[in-house]
Amino acid sequence: MEKFDVVVIGGSAAGLTAAITSRRHYPEKKVLVIRKEDQVLIPCGIPYIFGTLGGCQMNLIPDSALEKNKIEWLVDEVTGIHPEKQTVTTAGGKEIGYERLVIATGSVPMVPPLPGVDKKGIYAIKKDIAHLEELQAALAKASHLLIVGCGFIGVELAEECRKLGDLDIKIVEMLRHCLQLTYDVEFSVKAEDVLRAQNIEILTGEKVEGFLGGKAVEKVRLASGRDLDVDVVIMGIGARASTALAVDAGLETGPTRGIQVNRYMQTSAPHIFACGDCAEKVSFFDGKPSALKLASIATMEARIAGSNLFGARRANMGVIGVYSTILGDTAFCAAGLTETGAKDKGFDIVVGEAEAVNRHPGSMGGGKLLKVKLIFEAGTRVLLGGQVSGAKSAGELINAISACIHQRMTADDIATFQTGTHPGLTASPIAYQLVNAAEIAIANSWKLSSRWKRPA
Amino acid sequence: MEKFDVVVIGGSAAGLTAAITSRRHYPEKKVLVIRKEDQVLIPCGIPYIFGTLGGCQMNLIPDSALEKNKIEWLVDEVTGIHPEKQTVTTAGGKEIGYERLVIATGSVPMVPPLPGVDKKGIYAIKKDIAHLEELQAALAKASHLLIVGCGFIGVELAEECRKLGDLDIKIVEMLRHCLQLTYDVEFSVKAEDVLRAQNIEILTGEKVEGFLGGKAVEKVRLASGRDLDVDVVIMGIGARASTALAVDAGLETGPTRGIQVNRYMQTSAPHIFACGDCAEKVSFFDGKPSALKLASIATMEARIAGSNLFGARRANMGVIGVYSTILGDTAFCAAGLTETGAKDKGFDIVVGEAEAVNRHPGSMGGGKLLKVKLIFEAGTRVLLGGQVSGAKSAGELINAISACIHQRMTADDIATFQTGTHPGLTASPIAYQLVNAAEIAIANSWKLSSRWKRPA
Repeated sequence: MEKFDVVVIGGSAAGLTAAITSRRHYPEKKVLVIRKEDQVLIPCGIPYIFGTLGGCQMNLIPDSALEKNKIEWLVDEVTGIHPEKQTVTTAGGKEIGYERLVIATGSVPMVPPLPGVDKKGIYAIKKDIAHLEELQAALAKASHLLIVGCGFIGVELAEECRKLGDLDIKIVEMLRHCLQLTYDVEFSVKAEDVLRAQNIEILTGEKVEGFLGGKAVEKVRLASGRDLDVDVVIMGIGARASTALAVDAGLETGPTRGIQVNRYMQTSAPHIFACGDCAEKVSFFDGKPSALKLASIATMEARIAGSNLFGARRANMGVIGVYSTILGDTAFCAAGLTETGAKDKGFDIVVGEAEAVNRHPGSMGGGKLLKVKLIFEAGTRVLLGGQVSGAKSAGELINAISACIHQRMTADDIATFQTGTHPGLTASPIAYQLVNAAEIAIANSWKLSSRWKRPA
Repeated sequence: MEKFDVVVIGGSAAGLTAAITSRRHYPEKKVLVIRKEDQVLIPCGIPYIFGTLGGCQMNLIPDSALEKNKIEWLVDEVTGIHPEKQTVTTAGGKEIGYERLVIATGSVPMVPPLPGVDKKGIYAIKKDIAHLEELQAALAKASHLLIVGCGFIGVELAEECRKLGDLDIKIVEMLRHCLQLTYDVEFSVKAEDVLRAQNIEILTGEKVEGFLGGKAVEKVRLASGRDLDVDVVIMGIGARASTALAVDAGLETGPTRGIQVNRYMQTSAPHIFACGDCAEKVSFFDGKPSALKLASIATMEARIAGSNLFGARRANMGVIGVYSTILGDTAFCAAGLTETGAKDKGFDIVVGEAEAVNRHPGSMGGGKLLKVKLIFEAGTRVLLGGQVSGAKSAGELINAISACIHQRMTADDIATFQTGTHPGLTASPIAYQLVNAAEIAIANSWKLSSRWKRPA
């Protein structure tokens, strides 16, 4: 029986990153990745397969990352984990021993048990090349596309499918606005405007009741009673942790049904770690269970798990949730709690907003408006969340905001933060949005709370 | 005699920001800005007047910022500060009382006392419209331009003057590389390559000894003995604090000859504050005197001074130094200490570097390489500095790095930092440069120091 110091199950964002991290932290260890897929898709790139990229082969994680880091890999399916023997068994008939095991089995899309949901033409977004190529072929022949769910997968797919030509595209969303769990309403409305300008119809506050047709789906019935003609339906309503292997091995699961882990990413079996979509998470803000599933969280957890395999080096402080997307040529980015989300968690808040062109003077050319909204706890003025929309530089600005959230920076810390600015790259140091939004939140806080008395 | 709660001397980055900050923090106070200039230039935009923008009128700070914040202003020159009476007197014959005074008189360019330095055709970059328009007219007729000093003003001016057409452009720099005080040598060399590709000649390790000609400069004599033909010479060798008013008023100055201030930006006279280029500074890293002069430092200090006028609300932790520029289509950004700078301050260091395209997959289009270098103290692995070059998104990424430096984040903090990533905006969460550079620094640190023993 072959034996490795470290065995990782799964070769996507979490598994690959855990393997690389263990290599970096424990250079002398033998590391093996076992994955089902011959080729691994970049998860965040999947919507772009259908338009910008043109196909799955353009959206692969190269195996060179494994080679370069001297990590072995095996394409096979793990069918059993045996914690007492410290081995895994595979569909290919192998038994492989481990000192430390990392479970990074990811998630599978949720499919609601609606009448007719098994009809041909209805697709979930699985990270599976054959499945996605079938969907791609179906889209090429389709006239009517319905996307269920107006989260990130929904909006990104809608825009990419618009590039396929004269297709009727509708999105159905139960909530009142698209991307409502990530953005406050004014940002969501801006995103909806960008989509509608591309002739994508958005039906919010609306629910699917069932699917009609013969073998193939022909119509979707909505709760409002309306029937929509469809050739292809894409379900984009979320994902659930893939935990079957872990559960069969007797590992505990948590309140959101992920594999239960401690702050060091250890499961209930001390030699076994879990990370990524399959692992249970808690919120950074209050320690309560969180159902967030993001590639950037997966890699963060993988960097903790990988570093802790032979000694506790890092602890997981909980998930913040940092998101970016681009719709049309407008970036939409968010980190931490929205206004609504912060209130739901019981925080009194104060908000500051600042908007400016990301050049100075504006006549420099190439500039675009960039708006920053920051949400602070009202008493301590600790940063709880931020949202940015506009120019593409938002994609990095949100990471400055994420750093500020991680470090529990206050509005004063951010307002006196030294920033690099340049006429051709950012707003001026006077108008710099991040700093000004913090200043404006402080100004707003004077008006706000009885806990604060204006200094004489 | 008219009296104001707050009088600010100077209407540029520091003065304007101090005025706006005092308005935000003390909404009931009467605020006056007194400035010499009828129109105020955006300081960072000055090099771009000569090419991209086409003229000074395209590079003004609009007075709407004052109006919108209900700040009064007076175009006049302050000629005396009278701390005992709490008044200032002006060239226009006014005496104006203040409760609190903010001195934001900025800096003036250094001009070395070289033989012939007074000849016509030799210009320093003063923040003065008439002076810059005269330079612009001289450049329009010039065939040979020599820039003395290869810092930011030098390299940005050289590139902008290249847009004027078939002009011979040379830069003379005493140090071995351009931008050597801000970047490590590999970044400086990359910047030099970008400039040389535009047919800008860079003479490093070379010194000007004097200027030859009649009334107008005709030749520049170098220390190496070489004479260069010139029509126009621009001096870009740094600036010194404008302190005459403060010195005449009996205020103390500091070791770099700025107006001495405490951590609250108060001068030796308790009702008088100073901020920006005219104020003395200390380093964030060791508290020692720092001669850095940057608009982003000026606005930071102004936000501290403005908030402290009627009560100590914020303290200045010292200057970090965050820089951005773009040469060709390559951004060059830096924050904190370079490798060399950190060693000069006595730190043992460990370095990590990561480079990747700022899209994922690379085939998304619109992507460009983005390289991050991070410099950590070797024992604690606290971040001391970072440099970024490549795509324009570097302009915001450097501010994420600045936040990490401010908060004294360690390599582990940064490596497990949750980042927003998106195919159309950034590298993948697996390859994200900031996080990977931190991981690589940790991997490098195992090899490094006897203080660290590899855990078993």
